[in-house]
Order: sequence, then C-alpha cells, then structure tokens
Amino acid sequence: MAPTGNAPLRIAQVAPVWTSVPPTEYGGAEQVVHWLTEGLIRDGCEVTLFASGDSRTSAVLHSTCDRNLLAKMADREAYAYEPYANATLVEALRMADRFDVIHCHLGAAFIPMATLCPTPMLYTVHAGLDLADELWILERYPDVPIAALSHSQVAAVSAARRRNIDVIYHGCDFDEYQGSTAPGDYLLFLSRMSSYKNPAGAIRVARAVGMPIILAGKPMTQAEERYFDEEVQPLVDGRAVRYLGPVSAAEKVELMRGAAALVFPIRWEEHFGVVMIEAMACGCPVVASRRGSVSEVVDPGITGFYGESEDELAALVPRALSLDRRTIRAHARKRFGVDRMVSDHLDLYRRLAPRRRH
Amino acid sequence: MAPTGNAPLRIAQVAPVWTSVPPTEYGGAEQVVHWLTEGLIRDGCEVTLFASGDSRTSAVLHSTCDRNLLAKMADREAYAYEPYANATLVEALRMADRFDVIHCHLGAAFIPMATLCPTPMLYTVHAGLDLADELWILERYPDVPIAALSHSQVAAVSAARRRNIDVIYHGCDFDEYQGSTAPGDYLLFLSRMSSYKNPAGAIRVARAVGMPIILAGKPMTQAEERYFDEEVQPLVDGRAVRYLGPVSAAEKVELMRGAAALVFPIRWEEHFGVVMIEAMACGCPVVASRRGSVSEVVDPGITGFYGESEDELAALVPRALSLDRRTIRAHARKRFGVDRMVSDHLDLYRRLAPRRRH
Repeated sequence: MAPTGNAPLRIAQVAPVWTSVPPTEYGGAEQVVHWLTEGLIRDGCEVTLFASGDSRTSAVLHSTCDRNLLAKMADREAYAYEPYANATLVEALRMADRFDVIHCHLGAAFIPMATLCPTPMLYTVHAGLDLADELWILERYPDVPIAALSHSQVAAVSAARRRNIDVIYHGCDFDEYQGSTAPGDYLLFLSRMSSYKNPAGAIRVARAVGMPIILAGKPMTQAEERYFDEEVQPLVDGRAVRYLGPVSAAEKVELMRGAAALVFPIRWEEHFGVVMIEAMACGCPVVASRRGSVSEVVDPGITGFYGESEDELAALVPRALSLDRRTIRAHARKRFGVDRMVSDHLDLYRRLAPRRRH
Repeated sequence: MAPTGNAPLRIAQVAPVWTSVPPTEYGGAEQVVHWLTEGLIRDGCEVTLFASGDSRTSAVLHSTCDRNLLAKMADREAYAYEPYANATLVEALRMADRFDVIHCHLGAAFIPMATLCPTPMLYTVHAGLDLADELWILERYPDVPIAALSHSQVAAVSAARRRNIDVIYHGCDFDEYQGSTAPGDYLLFLSRMSSYKNPAGAIRVARAVGMPIILAGKPMTQAEERYFDEEVQPLVDGRAVRYLGPVSAAEKVELMRGAAALVFPIRWEEHFGVVMIEAMACGCPVVASRRGSVSEVVDPGITGFYGESEDELAALVPRALSLDRRTIRAHARKRFGVDRMVSDHLDLYRRLAPRRRH
C-alpha cells in the first residue's frame, strides 16, 4: 500500500557494499547514503539500510556481506563486486512490500532489476552516465527513475530519457563541519591522487601564486600509483609542497578549516565533487576547473571561482581569498546542506510511491 | 502451470552474451548451450533462447544485446559484462510464466535472482565453484539447483549444499565430428595458450616420445600473450613443433581426425574440458594430466590415459596410440553424446518443473 495521510514513508536504502556506511576512509557514495539515511530518519521516515554488516546506522540494518567488501578483498575473502551487490539488491527486492520506495545506489548495471519490483525504485548512480553501457541501459529502461548528481552527469543522455530524471545535488551534514574565519596561509588539494583529479596541476597553481600547498589523499589504483610516483612525488619538498597521504574525517575538517582555499583543478567531467561542498562547509573557498558539475556547484564571487586553464586558476586565487568565509558556509548550507538533500528526496519519493504496481 | 501429461516442456535457456550461440570461434559455454538447445528442440521441447542478436538457433530467440559482447567491446560499443547479463536475465524473469524451467548459464553471481522467480531456475556455472565468492553465494542460496560440470567442479562445496547439485557432464553433437581410423603421425595440442593449459608441457611430451606436434589456439589475455611469447614461441620450429594460431570449427575437426593423440597436460583443476570429448568424437585418444575433471572424462585403456608428470604422459602416449579409434568414438558417444546430455537435463527439468511457486 502507498502511504496515506500522515503515515511515515518506508524507504529502503541499498548502499554499495564496497565500504561500510558511513565509510571509515574513502567512499563517497556510502558517505552520502549515510547522511541521507540519518536525515530521512530525523524527518520521520522508517528506513531500512541494506549495507555491509560493519555499518553504523540509526536505520534498521540488513546486511548480506558481514564486512565491507574492500576489507574482505584485502583479506582475500572476496574477489568481485557483483555477487555481493546482486545478493544485496535481490534481498531488498524480496522485502519489497515492506517499502514505499527502494532507493538503489549500486550502479547503472542494476537498473534492469527495477522492472521486477512492484515497489517503485529510484536509482542514484555515483559514477558516469556517459559511457556506452550506461547510455544503453538508460535508454532500454526509460521508465526507471533516476536521481542524477548534476545536470552535467546526464548531459550525454537523450532529452526524452532526461524527462524521467531528476537532478538532486548531494548534500553533507554541516554539523560535522565547523566554519573558520581565520584560516592559515596554505592552499589545499584533497582528492584521490589521479591524473584526472590533477594534484600536479594544483601544485603548479600554488607555485604561480607563491603560496604553500598541502596535498592529502592517496592513489587508489596501480595506474594512479605510477602517476603519483612520476608526476607528483618529485614536486613534494616537505615545505612549499607537503603531502600527507590519506587523512581521517577529523583531519580533513581541520585541513579545510585552515586552508586559504581548496584548489580543484580537475581534468575530467566531475559528476558532483563532494569535496567542494565539504570545503564550503568549513568556510573555505573553492578554485576549480570549469569541468563537469563545477559550474553547478560553485557560485562565482560567493563560494569560489572557476576558470579554464591553470594560469587562470592561479589568477583567481587572490580573488577567492577575499571572499567572506561566513557567507561561503551560510550560502553553501542552503544549497548543499543535508536538510535540502533530504527534502528533495522526500519530494521525489512522495511522487514515486503512488506508482506501486499491484 | 507445470506441464501435465504429454504437454511439451517450455524451457528458457539464458546464454552468456560474450559470444553468439553458437560461437564463431572461442566460447565453450555458448557452444554447449547451442547443442543443448538444438537437442531439446529435437526432443519436442519448446525452447526460448536468450542470447546475443547475432545467434543462429532453432529456438525462439530473445536478444537484449544486438551483437555478441566481444564484438561490441572490440568496437568500443560496450565495456562491461554485467549490464548486458543483468538485462538478459531480468528479461527472462519477466517472461517467467511462459516457462516451466529457466536454465541460466550467466555465472554464479546471478544465483540470487533465482529467489525472485516463481518458475524454477537451474544454473550451470561454466567456471570454477571453488573461490570465496562462489562458495559464499552457493551456501547463501542452498535451495537454488545447480547442474555441475563434474564432481571435481563441486569438490570444494559443502556436502550439505552438494545434495542440491546434480552433475551433468557436457556432451557434444557427434554428427558434427567424423571418426577417423587412419590418423597422421602427429600429436595435437588445442586450447587457449595459457600456462594452466600448458602448451609448453605438450611440446616437451612430444619431444620425449620423438613425435611431431601441432598446436592450435591463441592467447586470450595479456598475461597469456606474455606466457606464449616467452614459453611457447621459442620452442616452435615449424617442423617438429608447428603452431597454427586459432582455427575454425572445421579445421579443428580435421586436426583431431588426423592426430595420433590429443595431449592435454593441464596444470589446473579443469571443470570439464570439452576439447577432450571433441577429440574422442573424432576417434582421437586423449593423454591428459590427472587434474580436475580428467579422471571423470577419460576412461583409461578405452578413450585414453592420464598420469601425473610430463614424463608419465610421454610414457602413456605409445599405449594411447594402440587404442581402437572406432571404440573411442563409440564409447565416448554413449557417455558424452548430445542425446545423453539432453536426456540428463530433461530428467532434471521434469523434477524441477513441479516446484513452481504460485
């Protein structure tokens, strides 16, 4: 039955099992699922979270995988994503009549399963929707609703298909961040150490403006390790250019509070870029390449600036430093706070719930 | 409704979409699905084949993927297996009430979907069932029936789980092979050029018995290309050791008819090894390592011999050459002909069909 009157919405959140919810280190999708889940519960929803067994949640936890998959893989207890993802989603589908909406975060490859489910399903795809596989599956299942991370994420999707796609920007829990009005004098780069996140470009920007830079994050693949060793490590001198490796959530907040600006010189079509809104939550302005979602996330002259070349980014840094950090946090909170993200999802869930098939 | 009386069984065969059915070159699973499908239709079943759109079949063809996935990947029209495999299986499940049994060949990762389907599903897994992922999924869904390729394939599975697993050996269509009683004087190696199939070992066996050897097949991965370049190519001299590369189905049959024996010196737990029964269908004896399924497939002193070391295999070659080639084909036909394979599956389908849930 669809909910009537004031009955609480019953939502299933199906998280990737790569990391726990919330993640202890890397895991953008799982972090967003955590904030969304906790926000929905605060708003009165009944939420069942399908996630790895080492998750910590206020929702009812249903786990197929006892531990997060990255940990199991490191211990050679698991080798592939699909068996665990399939089991997780199928077990949610078997409980479908307990939910008004099932919200699946597993990936575009799992969209066909929505057609088996009498309960409306919503998909958030935490990756690109521009490769042949994703475009093929989106067009084959045009009636399956998608919550896109940005208009940029769905730029390659046909206009007809986009009519059944809602853009809902990510939000983060601003209570987990504190604004700062007296930052240090360093620039910050915080992302995985990959060529498309472009830490070497961030170092060049810092040199051009004559400011020290701190880099945090780590290479996640062999190709990224090679890139880091060849292109980034030689530029690290421990003074003007410092590299911290991966950092905890608490260290991340302290780095952002202390940073004069976050440099985000990406060389790909970023789907969203949670790190930008985390920086804003700390009052830290963002100087970014105009690629992918950036022009949707950064408000020039309010929360940061974006430009084309590294030279242009360097020229924008002094302007970013003059932005008011209280205003950055306050403005970003309205656009990217967890309350707005929860409210957008609730609106969409309420539209989808009556579509239940009997 | 389960079939009653003489109503024909309605079977869905869900093939991997990696290659067409039948495959034009490599594709062991798709070849077996083809033989099984054609045999079931000859036996009066109504079969719907879920496979790539370039398949050729007597069944009703339902294709999600217009062309086989390897061709699409080569043309950069596709990148991953799961979107197409998920779509294929889900579309079979949506038509479930048209079938008495759905027989899925996509892989162990797809076993959870059986629990969504009111129609009984049977899984043949054309790969190992001994890694952590497969063992995990088998034990999590103990009621899903499995047709194992050999007892060896399920050796690592718990005894309790094995009670719901039937071993059905592959068969091949003996009409596509002709026996020969006047072979040439060469030994034959025919498999992918990988270290676990051990073509270099086959060459050493041939040298030890002083016979020429022909090798056919190709490296399928980068690691196999490196292995081939380093370990096999240097031993090829074009006279005593000849390498033909990949061969067509017709060339394969001619090579087997002309070979004095097939050398199969594997260094892994082979799940079945269709090439062994294809050789037998041509009257060609098999000399193989005693690994995996070999002791289940080769009948020593009738269709070939098996042993432990390469020295032992070399010593067995002269004994294999003395076996009667007519007897090899006749004996193998009974054990591994398509009729026996079809009949075993029909028995199992008839046992499963009444399990339909309403």
